[in-house]
Amino acid sequence: MTPKARVRTAGRISESTIKRLSLYYRALSVLEQTGQGTVSSQDLAGREDLSPAQVRKDLSFFGTFGTRGLGYPVGELRAKLARILGIDRTWNVAVLGAGNIGTALVSYREFKNQGFLIKRIFDSDPRKVGARHGGLVVSDIARLESDLVSERIEIVVIAVPAEAAQPLADRCVRAGLKAILNFAPVNLVLPDDVCLRTENMSMELEYLSYTLVNCALPPQG
Amino acid sequence: MTPKARVRTAGRISESTIKRLSLYYRALSVLEQTGQGTVSSQDLAGREDLSPAQVRKDLSFFGTFGTRGLGYPVGELRAKLARILGIDRTWNVAVLGAGNIGTALVSYREFKNQGFLIKRIFDSDPRKVGARHGGLVVSDIARLESDLVSERIEIVVIAVPAEAAQPLADRCVRAGLKAILNFAPVNLVLPDDVCLRTENMSMELEYLSYTLVNCALPPQG
Repeated sequence: MTPKARVRTAGRISESTIKRLSLYYRALSVLEQTGQGTVSSQDLAGREDLSPAQVRKDLSFFGTFGTRGLGYPVGELRAKLARILGIDRTWNVAVLGAGNIGTALVSYREFKNQGFLIKRIFDSDPRKVGARHGGLVVSDIARLESDLVSERIEIVVIAVPAEAAQPLADRCVRAGLKAILNFAPVNLVLPDDVCLRTENMSMELEYLSYTLVNCALPPQG
Repeated sequence: MTPKARVRTAGRISESTIKRLSLYYRALSVLEQTGQGTVSSQDLAGREDLSPAQVRKDLSFFGTFGTRGLGYPVGELRAKLARILGIDRTWNVAVLGAGNIGTALVSYREFKNQGFLIKRIFDSDPRKVGARHGGLVVSDIARLESDLVSERIEIVVIAVPAEAAQPLADRCVRAGLKAILNFAPVNLVLPDDVCLRTENMSMELEYLSYTLVNCALPPQG
């Protein structure tokens, strides 16, 4: 079955481009709330460490062009980016693991604002099952497969210890799940048709340390 | 003052390359613990959604080449990547904000394993100051500047509400800080010589939703 792309583009879009679209989307949402009608590539760029040329290039990928002297229409561009990013709709999300990260995630208001509705949080620890976090009651992981179906879960966030992550991911895949965001410090092996993002908070710090030692600072004495 | 690069490379290294080096580093750390002496580019690639050619290309950037039929020496390559990533040393880290994300971060064992030592966690809420999380006592944010100096903090992680983030970042910069990892859902504006990473957990979900609607799934009926 050939998947039909929702967005017609000149070629494959890189991960960095998608992440920048997320940033533009955020800036535009703020501007729209303030009632601003148009925005220049310069102003969109100024909110991150980017050039106006990069902004124009990114947006032209998706057939969007500003008007010289006027810029981009804020509301229209925000709506278009929402559609490209797939957040002009809601997604049903489940979180596996009610530890520090899992409970932080269910309390994170941004998710809901972006259309990611956390419908369930699971844990295997009987002391955690039944506890309340962010309006949800922790479910027993034994109910995983049946709840994935009954709640029509489309994205699972894994926030369990490393050794528990792969078996849980396998259970989700067997239950038909196609998208996993993994916070466990382990590289999951999944079938090609499952979308996987591995979020590693150490990696962000490592990127900073890389920059600190290689680029930004004079050599230490 | 011209910063001296610690790693000699053929050109500017992209963010995606650095992130892949972090992934290789993790895979190599696991292999080293199991006592495996060498690893092929195929095996390093197999742990993520990568090709062996990509692995070889990434590593050749840093002057590292495997031996045909033998692969890469695990321990040596791990040590080299640690040096490139700047994690062959320790970094002093402070967390601003003792909410869900901040407290999750101080309990996150991976940081310490990678050499990121969280020395302080701050909050402005008198009900949170004095509480214990992961072996640390929450400090009053009024002590920020003096503690950054006395604890020789090198990296600050911001995990406060959006409206509080920029003023706190400004205070850190005035106190001489050069690296910030921002979890607040806001784009910080900082001087050019400050390294900034903005971590937005919604962005990872947006990348998944982008992939789900554009690439992986057949059109919805």
